[in-house]
Amino acid sequence: MKPTLNQAQALDAADELAHFRERFVHDEPDLIYLDGNSLGRLPQVTAEHLQKVVSQEWGRRLIRGWNEGWYELPETVGAKVAQLVGAKADEVIIADSTSINLFKLALSAVQAQGGRTKIVTDDLNFPSDLYILQGVARLAGVDCEVVRVKSADGLHGPVEGLAEAITRDTALVSLTQTTFKSGYTYDLAAITEMAHRAEALVLWDLSHSVGALPIHLNEAGIDLAVGCTYKYLNGGPGSPAFLYVRRDLQEWLLNPISGWMGQENPFDFGLDYRPTMGIRRFLSGTPSIFGLAAVDAGIDLLLEAGMEKIRTKSVQQSGYFIELYDALLAPLGFRLNTPRDPKRRGSHITLGHEEGWRIDQALINEMKVLTDFRRPDNIRFGIAPLYNSFVEVYTAVTHLKTVVEERLYEKYSPEPKTVT
Amino acid sequence: MKPTLNQAQALDAADELAHFRERFVHDEPDLIYLDGNSLGRLPQVTAEHLQKVVSQEWGRRLIRGWNEGWYELPETVGAKVAQLVGAKADEVIIADSTSINLFKLALSAVQAQGGRTKIVTDDLNFPSDLYILQGVARLAGVDCEVVRVKSADGLHGPVEGLAEAITRDTALVSLTQTTFKSGYTYDLAAITEMAHRAEALVLWDLSHSVGALPIHLNEAGIDLAVGCTYKYLNGGPGSPAFLYVRRDLQEWLLNPISGWMGQENPFDFGLDYRPTMGIRRFLSGTPSIFGLAAVDAGIDLLLEAGMEKIRTKSVQQSGYFIELYDALLAPLGFRLNTPRDPKRRGSHITLGHEEGWRIDQALINEMKVLTDFRRPDNIRFGIAPLYNSFVEVYTAVTHLKTVVEERLYEKYSPEPKTVT
Repeated sequence: MKPTLNQAQALDAADELAHFRERFVHDEPDLIYLDGNSLGRLPQVTAEHLQKVVSQEWGRRLIRGWNEGWYELPETVGAKVAQLVGAKADEVIIADSTSINLFKLALSAVQAQGGRTKIVTDDLNFPSDLYILQGVARLAGVDCEVVRVKSADGLHGPVEGLAEAITRDTALVSLTQTTFKSGYTYDLAAITEMAHRAEALVLWDLSHSVGALPIHLNEAGIDLAVGCTYKYLNGGPGSPAFLYVRRDLQEWLLNPISGWMGQENPFDFGLDYRPTMGIRRFLSGTPSIFGLAAVDAGIDLLLEAGMEKIRTKSVQQSGYFIELYDALLAPLGFRLNTPRDPKRRGSHITLGHEEGWRIDQALINEMKVLTDFRRPDNIRFGIAPLYNSFVEVYTAVTHLKTVVEERLYEKYSPEPKTVT
Repeated sequence: MKPTLNQAQALDAADELAHFRERFVHDEPDLIYLDGNSLGRLPQVTAEHLQKVVSQEWGRRLIRGWNEGWYELPETVGAKVAQLVGAKADEVIIADSTSINLFKLALSAVQAQGGRTKIVTDDLNFPSDLYILQGVARLAGVDCEVVRVKSADGLHGPVEGLAEAITRDTALVSLTQTTFKSGYTYDLAAITEMAHRAEALVLWDLSHSVGALPIHLNEAGIDLAVGCTYKYLNGGPGSPAFLYVRRDLQEWLLNPISGWMGQENPFDFGLDYRPTMGIRRFLSGTPSIFGLAAVDAGIDLLLEAGMEKIRTKSVQQSGYFIELYDALLAPLGFRLNTPRDPKRRGSHITLGHEEGWRIDQALINEMKVLTDFRRPDNIRFGIAPLYNSFVEVYTAVTHLKTVVEERLYEKYSPEPKTVT
């Protein structure tokens, strides 16, 4: 059956989350924004909340703000993230950036693991994670090395290779659950179990999965996790990240960046570092209040909608995208880089094409379908169920078809200099 | 001569920076805010700029913001800070928190210094700095230790003790220029020269001096520095910090938190860390855009006023405070904890009193003079020349006199639980 706009409209009409779209700012009505996997949209409530925090909390209350909620904000917002990732409220805290949190947890884990010398990861991991792990290995001692397991096709997680690489020498297994290029999504529980059999710790980067799919950190017995809040949590550009440490590990691990916010009674101003009990010990310096406030406001929308419903719509939308791909795009030289099994994908779909970069440029500039591109050949379509409609998915695919059929990409130069 | 309000009013009338006061938000007109050394006031322009960044840049431009200035913001705002601290534009960058920047620079410096095993500091240093240095020593190897030189009176920097402690074993000397309790201010050039004679590197924390006094990092031959932007730079609660690395050291030092923002061509997504040349290599994760935007807006006010003029007024105001102290407060059991020599103090004045905590509580709650307290016995009066008037200084001191003379502090309990 030929895909039709009518069909897409019918899917929107039946969508019980459709009304959330109006809770976001849409200042450019003809823009189709499919890049929520890079930077989520601005929720209306966030714009209002930030104005209040700036004008009333900072402007009026000034230093008193620290005694009126700011000091606890890393924990109070962390407790909200905990609800999204299946953790206890006191196991998650907001702090710093994903890279810095990964550094803190990876180094503390490797040090706590004593003589074990290997950090196992894969080549689908986000490069910043790989760089950080390389730095951690350098600090952890001359014997320590990063073992980077290779994905056979560059798209699917190398599960068998990981099973071989994880041995009794492995201190830590650190992977990104939903990979940034193909969107391949690991089975958290299965890989964690594999690591635990070798008594290795696991550290998951949830940046591309939090807010896109339900996560059950406690149920899967996961040790450590980090993730960002500016993608599906709509926290704004460079919003602070989160970190999770399972409760029974919190006192065993020592934050290497031992700043005052992790100190027991920091306002006693003692001269020796005495880490506080609990999750706050993984804080370092003074936290960004605007960043926290934006995450705080945006995350409420996800809690209100519920992760199960968000996931159901996400799978339906990405499945719909794949149907449209089969019908309209596969004949035009596109390849589907994302797994067809919904359990093995996040909430973005990636297409390859030998003219991928130029096609994406045309799609953005001629058709106003905002997507992004990841080398060598990945046009990414991020689907954020809270504000993306089925009609947007349909329109994006038909525009993509037009770009190729009408060769609209030909006026663009082939080589990207900087892509974000 | 008895101090009078007339006198204070005359000083304000003659103050060529007085008009800057109106550039800040004053929502509570009867509040005397003398805590700009902890958290600066909200500039009008910052409130407006943040709204624009949230609504127009994030809300409307979305991911495109990264190609329209956000990516370079750590450098462009860093270049403004460079003007305030006497550095070249490409020697300063905005990143993370002061504690994290101190960690990055201290660890990289100690590692670069090879076999040298001592980090020299003092016990007036901000505790977070001491904690970070302790963590750095732990990571740098079993031999590495922090040597904490003791101040004889707890108020003045132990210059002679430092001269003894800095030896050929010293990898790094790390101090806070203007100390957080007494406001004692080191001679940057003299201590730096002392360290350099032993071929040690120096790392200055400028948190309490940047924006309060002119700093000449290049002229003094300083190696490394960090500092915060939420005090005299008015960047807002938890705004990102800055770091300075002298140009000829930038390629020699390696950021231990090797995240993607410090990578050469991060959007090539190579799998191995290759630090970029220049100051960007000291970045780690994705920077906070709201934080950067707020610093960007606020700092323009300082550049417009000029650091020399700001300093002239600051010295005049703190000198005036000390005159008032001599005339009105010394007879009431107060002690001046801040040096009388203007070269040896920053822009806050600290008074001790055996009932200090309760007096400060009464001053805040009964008199609406917002100050803060640092154990064991330091009431701090932060003077921010851009928005504090001479009348405010006069009124604060006379209120303080009233609090003691009328024993208004007696209804407050003695023991602070948490002080910010």
